[in-house]
Amino acid sequence: MNCGEGIDTRQVDELFINLDPIQAGGRLTTDAMKAVLAYGDGYSVCDNCVKPFRLDHISKPPLADFHRDLADFLQMDVARLVPGARRGFQAVAGALVSPGDPVLLTAYSHYTEFLSVEQSRGIPFEIPADELHIITPDAAAARIEEVIRTTGKTPSLMFVEQVDYQYGNLHPVAKIAKVAHQYDIPVLCNGAYTVGIMEVNGKELGADFLTGSGHKSMAAPAPSGVLATTDEWADKVFRTTGIKGDLTGRTFGIKEVEMMGCTLMGVTSVGMMASFPHVKKRVKEFDRQLQHVNTIVDALLSIDGTKIQSEYPRKHTLTRMNTIDSFDKVAKTHKKRGFFLTSALRERGITGILAGSTRVWKFNSYGVSKEQADHVARSFIEIAEAEGLTITG
Amino acid sequence: MNCGEGIDTRQVDELFINLDPIQAGGRLTTDAMKAVLAYGDGYSVCDNCVKPFRLDHISKPPLADFHRDLADFLQMDVARLVPGARRGFQAVAGALVSPGDPVLLTAYSHYTEFLSVEQSRGIPFEIPADELHIITPDAAAARIEEVIRTTGKTPSLMFVEQVDYQYGNLHPVAKIAKVAHQYDIPVLCNGAYTVGIMEVNGKELGADFLTGSGHKSMAAPAPSGVLATTDEWADKVFRTTGIKGDLTGRTFGIKEVEMMGCTLMGVTSVGMMASFPHVKKRVKEFDRQLQHVNTIVDALLSIDGTKIQSEYPRKHTLTRMNTIDSFDKVAKTHKKRGFFLTSALRERGITGILAGSTRVWKFNSYGVSKEQADHVARSFIEIAEAEGLTITG
Repeated sequence: MNCGEGIDTRQVDELFINLDPIQAGGRLTTDAMKAVLAYGDGYSVCDNCVKPFRLDHISKPPLADFHRDLADFLQMDVARLVPGARRGFQAVAGALVSPGDPVLLTAYSHYTEFLSVEQSRGIPFEIPADELHIITPDAAAARIEEVIRTTGKTPSLMFVEQVDYQYGNLHPVAKIAKVAHQYDIPVLCNGAYTVGIMEVNGKELGADFLTGSGHKSMAAPAPSGVLATTDEWADKVFRTTGIKGDLTGRTFGIKEVEMMGCTLMGVTSVGMMASFPHVKKRVKEFDRQLQHVNTIVDALLSIDGTKIQSEYPRKHTLTRMNTIDSFDKVAKTHKKRGFFLTSALRERGITGILAGSTRVWKFNSYGVSKEQADHVARSFIEIAEAEGLTITG
Repeated sequence: MNCGEGIDTRQVDELFINLDPIQAGGRLTTDAMKAVLAYGDGYSVCDNCVKPFRLDHISKPPLADFHRDLADFLQMDVARLVPGARRGFQAVAGALVSPGDPVLLTAYSHYTEFLSVEQSRGIPFEIPADELHIITPDAAAARIEEVIRTTGKTPSLMFVEQVDYQYGNLHPVAKIAKVAHQYDIPVLCNGAYTVGIMEVNGKELGADFLTGSGHKSMAAPAPSGVLATTDEWADKVFRTTGIKGDLTGRTFGIKEVEMMGCTLMGVTSVGMMASFPHVKKRVKEFDRQLQHVNTIVDALLSIDGTKIQSEYPRKHTLTRMNTIDSFDKVAKTHKKRGFFLTSALRERGITGILAGSTRVWKFNSYGVSKEQADHVARSFIEIAEAEGLTITG
């Protein structure tokens, strides 16, 4: 079956329990599916665009309300839609970082945060993690002091992940931001794994900027996301255009420079908006998701030699395992080599773990039901038993 | 009917002949509609992403082939998908324009071209249009000379629209580029209204950079587009990351700085790709579309007092009319005021012209059939006759 020349129809979440680290939170809701069909056409949200001609002012479909609701949802003052959280990083770095500025990131910062610093020609300084793979306020303070001492400059921006992509660990952003603010360093909290997944309160986090990813965690099509900020910073990052055609005298209304004007003019914004009521509801039910991931982790840990590299018990569903002393031992002699594990999982209707992984690998169980979590847990144990590994506990 | 809380299902192109200036080329094909459903989920194209982990290397769905096909289609060397043509402008300006650099645009440059210059802190200089609303090579040469003389610097970039958004006129890009190249000024040709609509040959145009818009002219969902360039410029605008985590030593593979890594990870790229075979076919049938727009324009011009502001006969379907001395006279005394025209069109199943317009207004008939063009032409005449305007010719 295909959906265009040479394009197979994708059937992953329809047929499998999908544990892909980056896909779990981006599955569309049924309402979003209806929305992508109804608003698939190019500039589909522009039918009723009137003065002042900007995406966040459109009232039909209700994008203006959606922008306000998003800011409220995040407990921030102002929000804008962006083509992915990365374009939020780019906008903030573009507005705040001058060439040669030191910029703080962490040992777990996403590559797109680094790219935004590179594009603005800032100099990156990482805050190290501790032995538990947590970025601590003390480490932040020490690094700030060191950077100021060695460069003679105060960093113009600090990036910090609320939950990082490597371990899925929850970092103490509020305390880190408090430290940063003592040095007047603005803080961008990267909520790509949290906004839309768990309750996120930007004010409590002390975030000057908060980004979320539509396609990663808000059940929306790609590329989509949100950049929210405070009244203090809105005028800087969302500054309106001041450029002028030197002959025609043309000016360009209230378009925002770092947004490049309107951002998501169709399927992406309406997809996010259609999923939003469901997203608001699901963040309140995150505890149940934590029970499910812990069920799966507990099953894995009952397999002798298996270790968890993420913090435990889990505070997020994205999880990093180490099975070098369990599944990887099997792989050494198995006729399917390292592929035996993902192959055996697939036979049980489970997909999303990087094919061939048996050493250190990640999964994200976000969105599974209790029955599915039990099935995944049981499957790991059955596969281990079938390969002669010992189960204890 | 709705497709989510408070979101009415959009039914425009299903129910009407849509003459909206910016929407005509962005209507999805049936294949693209299937694709948006199948690939609606967040990171849906990442299922089979393997080393070197970049969107343009994914072979299933066939994005790698699609990137090559796009470059061939445009007769350029390299192509990348971008979240709208504007993000192509941003990438090129980001790579080429330093603060204080003079940058050439035209009297008809789109606001997003200006925003990209503003973001890079360049200084804009417009090339004026002649009395026929065409940007000429002579005007370009004169402006270049003047800018060099007054600023002491050679502009670092020239933007030029192949077809502009104000008049829908076709500008002599090849000749303009030839002039620019005599001064070693690289040329970005904005093909937002042409790529996907008519045959565009980047080499013949002499474009160093060529942008297209998926949601404006390639039957794709928003935000989507293409930025293509030559081997000469690819290393600069698509340069790969060189930044490094100073403590962890992390580097970030072959991600491209100005692209912010991967760009369109789902519905947008697959939507573009699904429409692409149809787009390749339709650009060869553009002559028929010109016949249709001229049919409509001829009907309008037969209404006494009506003028066309675009070049005539039409070389593009986007067209600017002046009905100050015809429909606007009616509006002055009509009980519906200026809304009588768009209201009467709507009764005849025609939409997309800015509601209330009776003075200077634009339409884009791209995609209509002969029967639809005849119906639109007849409708304008019937409306004019019903309001007592004289038809001649």
